[in-house]
Amino acid sequence: MSIITVIGSGLMGSAMSVPASDNGHQVRLVGTPLDREIIGSLQEKGLHPTLPCAMPNSICAFQFEHVREALEGADLVICGVSSFGVDWFAEEALPLLPEGVPVLNVTKGLLGYPDGRLEPFPYFFARKRPDLSFAAIGGPCTSYELGDRRQTLVCFCSENLATAKFAQDLLKTSYYHIVPTTDVIGVECSVAMKNAYAMGVSLAVGMSEVENERQCSGSRVENALISGAHDGKLHFNPQAALFAQSCIEMRRLVRLLGGNGDLAGGVPGAGDLYVTIFGGRTRRLGTLLGRGLSYTEVRKRLAGVTLEAVSVITRVAEALRIRAKREEVSLQKFPLLMHLDALLNQEAPLSLDWDSFGESGMQES
Amino acid sequence: MSIITVIGSGLMGSAMSVPASDNGHQVRLVGTPLDREIIGSLQEKGLHPTLPCAMPNSICAFQFEHVREALEGADLVICGVSSFGVDWFAEEALPLLPEGVPVLNVTKGLLGYPDGRLEPFPYFFARKRPDLSFAAIGGPCTSYELGDRRQTLVCFCSENLATAKFAQDLLKTSYYHIVPTTDVIGVECSVAMKNAYAMGVSLAVGMSEVENERQCSGSRVENALISGAHDGKLHFNPQAALFAQSCIEMRRLVRLLGGNGDLAGGVPGAGDLYVTIFGGRTRRLGTLLGRGLSYTEVRKRLAGVTLEAVSVITRVAEALRIRAKREEVSLQKFPLLMHLDALLNQEAPLSLDWDSFGESGMQES
Repeated sequence: MSIITVIGSGLMGSAMSVPASDNGHQVRLVGTPLDREIIGSLQEKGLHPTLPCAMPNSICAFQFEHVREALEGADLVICGVSSFGVDWFAEEALPLLPEGVPVLNVTKGLLGYPDGRLEPFPYFFARKRPDLSFAAIGGPCTSYELGDRRQTLVCFCSENLATAKFAQDLLKTSYYHIVPTTDVIGVECSVAMKNAYAMGVSLAVGMSEVENERQCSGSRVENALISGAHDGKLHFNPQAALFAQSCIEMRRLVRLLGGNGDLAGGVPGAGDLYVTIFGGRTRRLGTLLGRGLSYTEVRKRLAGVTLEAVSVITRVAEALRIRAKREEVSLQKFPLLMHLDALLNQEAPLSLDWDSFGESGMQES
Repeated sequence: MSIITVIGSGLMGSAMSVPASDNGHQVRLVGTPLDREIIGSLQEKGLHPTLPCAMPNSICAFQFEHVREALEGADLVICGVSSFGVDWFAEEALPLLPEGVPVLNVTKGLLGYPDGRLEPFPYFFARKRPDLSFAAIGGPCTSYELGDRRQTLVCFCSENLATAKFAQDLLKTSYYHIVPTTDVIGVECSVAMKNAYAMGVSLAVGMSEVENERQCSGSRVENALISGAHDGKLHFNPQAALFAQSCIEMRRLVRLLGGNGDLAGGVPGAGDLYVTIFGGRTRRLGTLLGRGLSYTEVRKRLAGVTLEAVSVITRVAEALRIRAKREEVSLQKFPLLMHLDALLNQEAPLSLDWDSFGESGMQES
């Protein structure tokens, strides 16, 4: 039995306690200052207010003022904050971590710098605590389904393969399957971009909705197409074209940043994109933009909703523009991403340049 | 204006006449001996009995006994037969094609040989008619949606890039977008395997259905997960894991056969797999097997249905076994495909080895 301390008790941080507890480890779940109600609910009723699965009884929940106690003797620390909590984690939590404890990060995203550099969180954390070894999780895994013990396949990546394997040994179960890898860029870049591209694929959903509303005559076609899969209102050729283009651009970005492009067409790329498309806020955002609404209008409808897709699209498009000025990359290799950025940041009207999509496979770097 | 002769008036062959007509070409649609009723219906009523879109008025329909007339002066011939009609096409139609006419093939599949070779149809046809130049189409394109002029993105592949570009020039429209490529193996292997792997991904649909029927308590979770995307009955972590594994194995097979693996993670691979999962016979097959039915039971339920997935799985698994005996490949690189083969050909019970899935991205060939 080991001691696993999770800092951040949002959906994914909390869901990680399910495989950890199933393996007999002692799980200590620490809330951030934003998680006070969650921790209170766990302490009083043993219920997580937003994660619908039953939380393991053996979990100990801590408010952040007791984090030192929760970290005592920890064998593994899991960083469970969202991408908006990364700076907080680096400033408030990282300095408190015991010497030598390995850290596993569930947060997805990339940091952008004025010189066009894009940095995965494990590298950012390692600069703050060079004495520690960091790993990160990437792959198709919704917190709800992990909490429900559905079959799930992810990568654990780390510069130090032993750290990824150590975390794998603690957390792998009969339903949580883990592939360790040293390709940090391949994993982290893919899983960050999947939010961006899930918005991109969802544009086609909104476009189809509008077309269906215009053409009632389409109903016969759609019923013929569908055999139990869908509601009959969506067209799949355009979605699939955008899905393929998303995988292509993820691969190009991974290679640009020095990773192995294969993972963009595997578990953290295509796989995580697939799961992200089917639900949630990013799909809603893309669908509304696909219906032709401006981002100003969409923002009104989604007021109060946190959109990681917006921040990653904005950040990566800006980095690509900086690099394009230095002629390190051609923006024509990222036509979908640059249009997503234009939709969000220039109030551009929806106008997909389909002829710029696809690849010949002949001269790709 | 050019003359385009389509041989084979099934769904996809007939749908190709929509972009061809929209570009002002003269389209001559020739039925195979199995298509007599389709051609009769087109000649008498201008209606295709199974393709629900309106067929362009300008199409001329021919029974096969008039094929010579239909081929006179043709600038492009499209082979529109299904994979089960390839031998017929090679024996009955190929010898009649005029000298020098380029041929564009919509048929998807691979031929298997006793030495473990797998051959795309354009190569097979070129051996029969070495004087002609062949191209082939691959990408996410359902015939229904092409007939309805939905945005669609495909590759045209040919050993001779000029042939692919010639066909592209004749057929590209504002909704039918074409990327020419010389990576015949990358395109043809991916689009053949997508039928196999669409069955693989659909296993997770059947597994979820059974789990849902067992656990009524799951309903709260699923409602929370879904925002307009789905019927709330499917889990996506397992589907996404199988989707990723499918892309990985497609890439490995493309590379084994000498193609560029990138296309397996792009338009003909991931893209075509995405569209194939959402409906049709292959999904039904995979779902029933995923529910735990034996293939014998499934065959009874699907009596009379033509299953390209079964033939491609059987053929490719056999080729891999032959090559594995010669130590050219390890079957452990294809755990999903080999299990699909066992389900179909050895009446094996459903048992996915999730821990064999995924890849590190570190040592892939």
